[in-house]
Amino acid sequence: MADNLYEKLGASASKAGLHQALKAAGVASHSGLFAVVNADIAGDSDFLSFIHCDGAGTKSIIAYLLVKATGNSGHYAGLAQDALVMNLDDIYCLGVPDSLILANTIARNARIIGDEVIAELVGRYRRLVEELNSHGVPLALSGGETADMGDVVRSLVVDAVVAGRIAKKNLIDTNNIAVGDVIVGLASSGQASYEDFRNSGIGSNGLTLARHALLKREYAHTEPDIVDAAGLNDASYSGPFSVTDTPAELEGMSVGEALLSPTRTFAPVLNKIYSAHAAEVHGAIHVTGGGLTKVLRFGPGGLRFVKDSPIEPPAIFKLIQQHGGVSWKEMYQVFNMGQRLELYTAPSAVDAIIEQSKQMNIHAQVIGRVEKSPDKSNSVLVKSPHGEFEYKE
Amino acid sequence: MADNLYEKLGASASKAGLHQALKAAGVASHSGLFAVVNADIAGDSDFLSFIHCDGAGTKSIIAYLLVKATGNSGHYAGLAQDALVMNLDDIYCLGVPDSLILANTIARNARIIGDEVIAELVGRYRRLVEELNSHGVPLALSGGETADMGDVVRSLVVDAVVAGRIAKKNLIDTNNIAVGDVIVGLASSGQASYEDFRNSGIGSNGLTLARHALLKREYAHTEPDIVDAAGLNDASYSGPFSVTDTPAELEGMSVGEALLSPTRTFAPVLNKIYSAHAAEVHGAIHVTGGGLTKVLRFGPGGLRFVKDSPIEPPAIFKLIQQHGGVSWKEMYQVFNMGQRLELYTAPSAVDAIIEQSKQMNIHAQVIGRVEKSPDKSNSVLVKSPHGEFEYKE
Repeated sequence: MADNLYEKLGASASKAGLHQALKAAGVASHSGLFAVVNADIAGDSDFLSFIHCDGAGTKSIIAYLLVKATGNSGHYAGLAQDALVMNLDDIYCLGVPDSLILANTIARNARIIGDEVIAELVGRYRRLVEELNSHGVPLALSGGETADMGDVVRSLVVDAVVAGRIAKKNLIDTNNIAVGDVIVGLASSGQASYEDFRNSGIGSNGLTLARHALLKREYAHTEPDIVDAAGLNDASYSGPFSVTDTPAELEGMSVGEALLSPTRTFAPVLNKIYSAHAAEVHGAIHVTGGGLTKVLRFGPGGLRFVKDSPIEPPAIFKLIQQHGGVSWKEMYQVFNMGQRLELYTAPSAVDAIIEQSKQMNIHAQVIGRVEKSPDKSNSVLVKSPHGEFEYKE
Repeated sequence: MADNLYEKLGASASKAGLHQALKAAGVASHSGLFAVVNADIAGDSDFLSFIHCDGAGTKSIIAYLLVKATGNSGHYAGLAQDALVMNLDDIYCLGVPDSLILANTIARNARIIGDEVIAELVGRYRRLVEELNSHGVPLALSGGETADMGDVVRSLVVDAVVAGRIAKKNLIDTNNIAVGDVIVGLASSGQASYEDFRNSGIGSNGLTLARHALLKREYAHTEPDIVDAAGLNDASYSGPFSVTDTPAELEGMSVGEALLSPTRTFAPVLNKIYSAHAAEVHGAIHVTGGGLTKVLRFGPGGLRFVKDSPIEPPAIFKLIQQHGGVSWKEMYQVFNMGQRLELYTAPSAVDAIIEQSKQMNIHAQVIGRVEKSPDKSNSVLVKSPHGEFEYKE
């Protein structure tokens, strides 16, 4: 059992080295807000503007393998949802935005990714924008850029960018998180009322670890277009499955489908929650890289985030843990583990938040509370049926 | 001599197939504006908003080779300028913007690209923003995202995103280009008054063709981290040079330095030109993919763009033509060939535009004129010392 399997595979949950290098270069930034904001682009002192970039990351590799195994190139399209939601849900942790514009960038190896895939991805963005509009998300579609660069990109990079404005009065500032707040987790799995399919809950982070933990060694040898051969080690593609395998735990999904399950957006339910409980929600954390420890970088400091009732991890995470030999401590640090959104709220709003989530068929539950830390730094305690784990800032 | 070397190398100057696929999916857009614009993000009917994405493309490969050859990792930093300017100069073809925000995305193979490179790139963005501010470019710096994805990205992808607003009264609409307009070209090479180094003029497009035409075959075999081995053919790395070679034509630059020369921005000089001649400038074309034929997609239609006095191509383009066996016709279709900005203007503004460029030490000259086309489609005629070439829409 290694505690740093993810770094061994060429990624990092904490990005500690990167944050340090950026800080040394004088470019690090800190605030109580979940995402970087700028002075308003329209010069209105009551507003802030932002421009946010994120993407589907290595999830494109799962799509590649599923397309190859099934012959259905439609498996790429969901990456548009991953890229969009990785931006949108970060932004909704700032509060309800006033207006948003979406653009997309795709970098591809044109030998592998045909023009029809790009058209499908862009078409999916368009349909997502229409659906989100119907749920009150003020998102407009702009253009994009597709770059052919097979000597740099082995297969496909799907990124999205969302720019927008938010009224200062709508901002959620994690510096307001206080001792006594309750932590409510919103589930990443299941099928929300606004979704067409059941979601495995995987989201868009930790996919490098998930892929190598679950998929079989053969891929490392037969698939040069998705493998950094020089980066291979004993943890690479060390799992038992091919993407089309359907272990019973996944209840009908194949391993590939579960890993590729498009990231759910919480924007529709957050629109409802914020409109009724703006003052009571002190913090919203999109649980991406860093997993349940992501909150360590936020808040006023000196807090202990006790998560003693985390949502029971969906099957895909249990499979990853089991077959990857990943320690449970690392699991909670890399993946969302079933709760991809955490709301830090005054106790008075808890019941309503859970009820509003339920109305959209999203499971929500109290996963913990905020206590005073014995020292000035933040800490997270995860107390789960799989063990107790302590993480420090 | 092949007319489609670029496509043979996995890229495309016209992106015809892609445009067609997007059109079939109902997502193509057409307007007289150089970049996609949206309704104003702040709801002001006198303004438009935009969000623009572009990047340094395969130029990162040249940086990789130069770093490897010289041991100086500082060669990566200029890619930040390429990524920024590829956005900024597109935007300035819309006219003078009211406000801009910059964000960046980097996708890397962390095995190859260390944290210090990311810090240098981000630091360079910050310095560029400060410099541009001093020239009246209203650009604010926001955050970014660095993704570790070595199984997707062989080395490094450096992208930038610029969102902003522009007053409708400032818009340059290429539909105003008319018979009798003069085409003024602004040089991509030399050293502008606001630049620290001499520029080769290469810009950020056509680098795939440039690299394979100039660099020696050895790289295809010794450098798996920058080569799509499955995409190799007789045109791949078919040149005579290593990146540190200094052919006399380049006057002191190495081949690598000339290919990596950071893309010049024309924003400072365009700020001056537009402020004095807004009504007379009918079109501004950032000469990127498509080269001197880029204008074919713009204007009201039925125009013949006669370019009978193009700027003499800087040495780097002559080297590419000569050693790559690239036809001159393709050269003018892929590269900027020395004029990376074309202004389509009423004759009355020509002298002032050339003088204003000269004051910033940027060579500018009349490169042609707009005539009526014999049919309804656009055409471009390039009449150069290297031959006469006709291109149709």
